[in-house]
Amino acid sequence: MAPIEVTSILFKEFVNDGKVPEDNFVVNKEQRIDPEADLKDGQIFLRLLYLSVDPYMRTRMRKMESYYLGSGFEPGKPLQGGCVAQVVASKAPGFAEGEVVSGMLPWSSHQIVEADAQKGLHKVEPSLLGKVPLSYFVGVLGMPGMTAWSGLKKIAEPIKEGEVALVSAAAGAVGLIVGQLLKHVYGCKVIGSAGSNDKVALLRELGFDAAFNYHTTPKEQALKEAAPDGIDIYWENVGGPVLETVIEMCRPHARIVACGMISQYDLPDEEKYGVKNLFHVVTKRIKMQGMVVADYYAELGKEFATTMGKYVTEGKVKAVEHVTEGIENAGKAWVEMMVGGNTGKAVVKVAAEDPFPVKKE
Amino acid sequence: MAPIEVTSILFKEFVNDGKVPEDNFVVNKEQRIDPEADLKDGQIFLRLLYLSVDPYMRTRMRKMESYYLGSGFEPGKPLQGGCVAQVVASKAPGFAEGEVVSGMLPWSSHQIVEADAQKGLHKVEPSLLGKVPLSYFVGVLGMPGMTAWSGLKKIAEPIKEGEVALVSAAAGAVGLIVGQLLKHVYGCKVIGSAGSNDKVALLRELGFDAAFNYHTTPKEQALKEAAPDGIDIYWENVGGPVLETVIEMCRPHARIVACGMISQYDLPDEEKYGVKNLFHVVTKRIKMQGMVVADYYAELGKEFATTMGKYVTEGKVKAVEHVTEGIENAGKAWVEMMVGGNTGKAVVKVAAEDPFPVKKE
Repeated sequence: MAPIEVTSILFKEFVNDGKVPEDNFVVNKEQRIDPEADLKDGQIFLRLLYLSVDPYMRTRMRKMESYYLGSGFEPGKPLQGGCVAQVVASKAPGFAEGEVVSGMLPWSSHQIVEADAQKGLHKVEPSLLGKVPLSYFVGVLGMPGMTAWSGLKKIAEPIKEGEVALVSAAAGAVGLIVGQLLKHVYGCKVIGSAGSNDKVALLRELGFDAAFNYHTTPKEQALKEAAPDGIDIYWENVGGPVLETVIEMCRPHARIVACGMISQYDLPDEEKYGVKNLFHVVTKRIKMQGMVVADYYAELGKEFATTMGKYVTEGKVKAVEHVTEGIENAGKAWVEMMVGGNTGKAVVKVAAEDPFPVKKE
Repeated sequence: MAPIEVTSILFKEFVNDGKVPEDNFVVNKEQRIDPEADLKDGQIFLRLLYLSVDPYMRTRMRKMESYYLGSGFEPGKPLQGGCVAQVVASKAPGFAEGEVVSGMLPWSSHQIVEADAQKGLHKVEPSLLGKVPLSYFVGVLGMPGMTAWSGLKKIAEPIKEGEVALVSAAAGAVGLIVGQLLKHVYGCKVIGSAGSNDKVALLRELGFDAAFNYHTTPKEQALKEAAPDGIDIYWENVGGPVLETVIEMCRPHARIVACGMISQYDLPDEEKYGVKNLFHVVTKRIKMQGMVVADYYAELGKEFATTMGKYVTEGKVKAVEHVTEGIENAGKAWVEMMVGGNTGKAVVKVAAEDPFPVKKE
């Protein structure tokens, strides 16, 4: 095998406040890998198939202590995120050529990695190969799916049938799955907010009982119509004034799963929105709890893979993807995702061909 | 028995914003009770021994939906709160003359009440009579004690030995018990904030590892010194800027028991403090949960009575009381308590003589 040209997306520099511009993602093609000469014992040589662009990555682009994975990105080095990759060559026990893995990996088209467990690299469920697109393993069957499923399980449960749930950023990667689980698995009345009429239409199509475009409908009005008796479960993706409005509308014993607060990520501290009605947390016995999905894999990872695999193949939960072609466009894809340019899971297709295409029946 | 003159404290009117003045508590002596003529089957005739003045009552003085007990106080009628009373006469099975009960009762020196269970009236543990002052049954062995014990159990647990805990309003009725439980039962490092040097001295005496006077020491400085590595458990009694500072200092997986937010009770909505750093709830996986103690009695009431009775008689948890004499002074006692005039549990002694005095050994 001749040396291979590696395309990487490098993290240029920290951006503490404001939007992260597209040119902060630098395409680099300088690296070469010669698998035969470079691959050492205990290592595997991977080619990237899909990479995932996610909002949580914003936190790692700020020069600050991050509790996600312990640290920010390293300037001048490749970004890192959820990826699906195929083993091209292996000198590590337990990994064979042709197998497909997923995990947190650098944004490099080809790479040699240590195969040890600490990397969180694991093989995708073989029984699903050819049944679902491989991109699902960074979506509904990957981190966003695990986020939705485990957040409901660990923070929102116990959930009673008929409870009223609101999902913000409902047409995003996590929101779409949360809403479908709440509707089709838990039997809740589900309301979604999203940023365009197309997204609202999609939410209705997927079974949401109500959905509104927050750009065109005042949220107080939309929520009063959709949830006249208040809200029991709030899946929090946005923060700021939306959180304040929802707290006002919470029923006693409401649960707020604080998964993200995207409206606040780019703001300098002094411009962040001050939530004035936290007093209701006491009187209404609201539980608001933050989550980082990495905490739950050890306990729930296997159960998730089985359960969600079943939901997806049965059609109970539908995957919606927003695919960008080519690793060179990963920065653009991330920037667009951050302003809601995606509907459903934003993924970047890195390898041209899918080694396990889904057969039409 | 001749008709008895009843002294009641009536609730004058709703006060939505600002401090509730002392003259909103109206002493009334117009009612007469003739126990022989007035007492019907299923009823008991009680004389009040102690009544409790508590911050949560502020919520019921506002004309708004309250989730505490379902409603505000009724203008022109007696206020209501935690009380200890003695049965003078009974026409209800299960209650005998001379027995001591506690529960939510009107602020009337004498009263006839239905004895049914819905009132939440229950007999105080007979084995403790003469061993502890009866006032403890509205304090460390009553609602404030149950609040402290059950809030830690249901929201803060699991608690690891050596975790760092902060208690605000730590010299108040609930705070003093929370701090002692965290220190002497759970083995935490406990920090207390309070509003005077005398209170701070008391906290140290009771075993708090650190304590500061928030009037004279900037909270950021005091907390950085006392908890340089951050806070794991925060018992929230005050809200506002203190909550914001604590969120900033929370360690990952911190728990905030939202028991009260006294700094915000009197403020009109637009003047309430906006907490700007709730984003940390996500990244640090903070759990903030509100509590109303009434929710926990059915599940935990008996266990509390046994457990806390043991802690108190063993001296593991010490009761500190601030006693005002005479039901006529109940309004004044409440108003003073709201500005921190009390150290420990604020109670009003209604009957001149204690029927079960504690014997000195």
